[in-house]
Amino acid sequence: MRPWSKIVSEDEEGIYKTIGFGGASGLGRRPALVIIDVQYRTAGETPMPISEAIKQFPSACGQAAWDAIAQIKLLLAEFRRKKLPVIYAYVAKKETYDAGRLGEKMPALMGISDRGYEFVKEIEPIAGEILLPKRHPSAFFGTPLASYLVDQRADSLVMTGCTTSGCVRASTVDGFAYNYRMTVPEDAVYDRIPTSHAVNLFDMASKFADVKPTKLVLESLAAL
Amino acid sequence: MRPWSKIVSEDEEGIYKTIGFGGASGLGRRPALVIIDVQYRTAGETPMPISEAIKQFPSACGQAAWDAIAQIKLLLAEFRRKKLPVIYAYVAKKETYDAGRLGEKMPALMGISDRGYEFVKEIEPIAGEILLPKRHPSAFFGTPLASYLVDQRADSLVMTGCTTSGCVRASTVDGFAYNYRMTVPEDAVYDRIPTSHAVNLFDMASKFADVKPTKLVLESLAAL
Amino acid sequence: MRPWSKIVSEDEEGIYKTIGFGGASGLGRRPALVIIDVQYRTAGETPMPISEAIKQFPSACGQAAWDAIAQIKLLLAEFRRKKLPVIYAYVAKKETYDAGRLGEKMPALMGISDRGYEFVKEIEPIAGEILLPKRHPSAFFGTPLASYLVDQRADSLVMTGCTTSGCVRASTVDGFAYNYRMTVPEDAVYDRIPTSHAVNLFDMASKFADVKPTKLVLESLAAL
Amino acid sequence: MRPWSKIVSEDEEGIYKTIGFGGASGLGRRPALVIIDVQYRTAGETPMPISEAIKQFPSACGQAAWDAIAQIKLLLAEFRRKKLPVIYAYVAKKETYDAGRLGEKMPALMGISDRGYEFVKEIEPIAGEILLPKRHPSAFFGTPLASYLVDQRADSLVMTGCTTSGCVRASTVDGFAYNYRMTVPEDAVYDRIPTSHAVNLFDMASKFADVKPTKLVLESLAAL
Repeated sequence: MRPWSKIVSEDEEGIYKTIGFGGASGLGRRPALVIIDVQYRTAGETPMPISEAIKQFPSACGQAAWDAIAQIKLLLAEFRRKKLPVIYAYVAKKETYDAGRLGEKMPALMGISDRGYEFVKEIEPIAGEILLPKRHPSAFFGTPLASYLVDQRADSLVMTGCTTSGCVRASTVDGFAYNYRMTVPEDAVYDRIPTSHAVNLFDMASKFADVKPTKLVLESLAAL
Repeated sequence: MRPWSKIVSEDEEGIYKTIGFGGASGLGRRPALVIIDVQYRTAGETPMPISEAIKQFPSACGQAAWDAIAQIKLLLAEFRRKKLPVIYAYVAKKETYDAGRLGEKMPALMGISDRGYEFVKEIEPIAGEILLPKRHPSAFFGTPLASYLVDQRADSLVMTGCTTSGCVRASTVDGFAYNYRMTVPEDAVYDRIPTSHAVNLFDMASKFADVKPTKLVLESLAAL
Repeated sequence: MRPWSKIVSEDEEGIYKTIGFGGASGLGRRPALVIIDVQYRTAGETPMPISEAIKQFPSACGQAAWDAIAQIKLLLAEFRRKKLPVIYAYVAKKETYDAGRLGEKMPALMGISDRGYEFVKEIEPIAGEILLPKRHPSAFFGTPLASYLVDQRADSLVMTGCTTSGCVRASTVDGFAYNYRMTVPEDAVYDRIPTSHAVNLFDMASKFADVKPTKLVLESLAAL
Repeated sequence: MRPWSKIVSEDEEGIYKTIGFGGASGLGRRPALVIIDVQYRTAGETPMPISEAIKQFPSACGQAAWDAIAQIKLLLAEFRRKKLPVIYAYVAKKETYDAGRLGEKMPALMGISDRGYEFVKEIEPIAGEILLPKRHPSAFFGTPLASYLVDQRADSLVMTGCTTSGCVRASTVDGFAYNYRMTVPEDAVYDRIPTSHAVNLFDMASKFADVKPTKLVLESLAAL
């Protein structure tokens, strides 16, 4: 059973199987951990159903966020232990001139309180970890992420955080296009919409990234 | 009924409704038409079920391609009539050094015949239309598309072609990030996997683009 | 007499004249003013010879900075009067992980005090003007500048600040590549090295931008 | 004596010396050779003075091109011997829609004959070497060069070809911004204007790249 098994049909999976999509890229020799948008604005202050969490922050994802944060914590510990690069991509506080198309499609994202922009304490950055403010979905778009990766000699990226169908997907497609080996631990990313979460995992697994449980990613990391 | 109505639940749609995702960007004053990857490699030689089409080209999408091509033809005629920019983004023939991560995740894409790279005759480019070879999913990535758009004074993009969950999605997210007004005519884009097609339309409609039938896009174009 | 007339020979200018380099792009219909790196780190606290200024900040340019700031002030007033976009691109405070190649080629840039990063008061930003922190020479590289320009519907850029042979040159070449009409007011940009200043103006005038005195740029602005 | 010694004054060099600009980046562990725009359009058919060569192709650089090509040939042989990546960045044939700002600043570049776009035979590419058509000065701008470099695991670039003050300079600044270790063999790059050639070498040596004779670069390569 994969996260998308109840949504994507066997016939559909069969097509990708027949044409051979979904090959493996592997973890690479020097992965970097990318933690995307794990701020109170997406997690809410505490675990609770999304229907409650959006009353705190309209951008919150509810319980799904906290389930993923528990997995990200395990990955973060392992990356720190191995002194591999850790990068926090996060949404920069919106200025009026940041509205653009985002202000039209998702106006609720323009008025988030300062608290919403703080990193979730359970997995907050420590000194020396790379902070990457961003203003668009992809962690690569309009940021110096590509330059940091060259400097860090990373050859692969482990993508975590949120949302699966938003910034994680956009960043993963860009990372793939830059020819980084991409891994998405399926239980360390989260979304507001379970169907989008599942189908974006399917899309990424088929075309752009290795998608697997955190447990298996940790095993590969241990073997580096 | 929207294309995703049988897959995305009412509860899920309700969350985006509550937080106000899915606002409208509008068509802009000077849209450009982007036709993505409408080559025989994705359409097959003639309309047929995808299970047959992939025997010609493993990357083919089958009947869905030809249904969309009929709609693209209408849009193309209108853009040409109004002398608005038309851009053909297409997959450049793969060289051995293009394998990279693509060669691992989707090895079938490396061995397509020359015929597969030809534009589908029904909507092939005419002199003066912009040809944009690309080597990665997004029509913006590693191409001068952004420069052409500035030169053409385009302020919005109408995205057509394939695949909805691949190059159309990647290009649409990038166009949104560049602050272009994005429109995706839902019946002028196509995919191999109906579930991915539908959920990617839902994601884009909610966050990145105005998604609507070609008929309505044509009405907006006529009113420019 | 042009700023480079004593350095570039008549024979050299003759070659570009013969092949027709140095054509005009014009100011466009909706220019944006870009003010690059006018922080105390490049201006020093007050006007003084560069040999003194570098004792305050190793990155300071001395008197040349303050001469240019007087011209930028005139341009800024006109852009504000006409409610045209104003963008402050500036060097973001360096973190240890920002060293990279910059830390090798120009190590002095890594240890600038907080004061050095402040905007020069004479032309500091006001509310609503776009702030663009950057970590590399070009104001486009690793920043969302391209997205802001699309949103602002700018079709041309007036480049000011410093250094002529560093960030101004890099940003101007990128703006040219994006197909923006580029103008460099020759007395509103500054450098540490007069020869580099002059020859970079010559290169830009010949290939990438319209280079002219601020006085003439102001006249074109008034005529918009 | 450096190539710029007769143009840049001792006082000017003294400023950079005082503030410590011009540090070394080194060659890295896995350099790629980038050969920029060495096509008949820049070299002319045979060695001759630039005043003659521009009668063949207005974009030609004359004798300087052929002097540099002799050096590039040595570097190319060494890169091939060591099976290190070789990348040919070259100007793609201009289409009418490519005019943009280039057609205004340098109109002569729009009408070059097909022959002009051919690679100079003395150092033409062999099978497996990366071909990178480009439409703007930098070899990175609007091209997938960054993706190829990640795939090739390159950590440094040796920049050759032309022009020193145009595409070589633009590509070198971008490569520096991406955090690649940049080397410019001063006698393997060429320009139309000796003063621009010299001062751009000075700028790059001071801020963006290690600039040294081909002979020394070959020694470093041999020691890898």
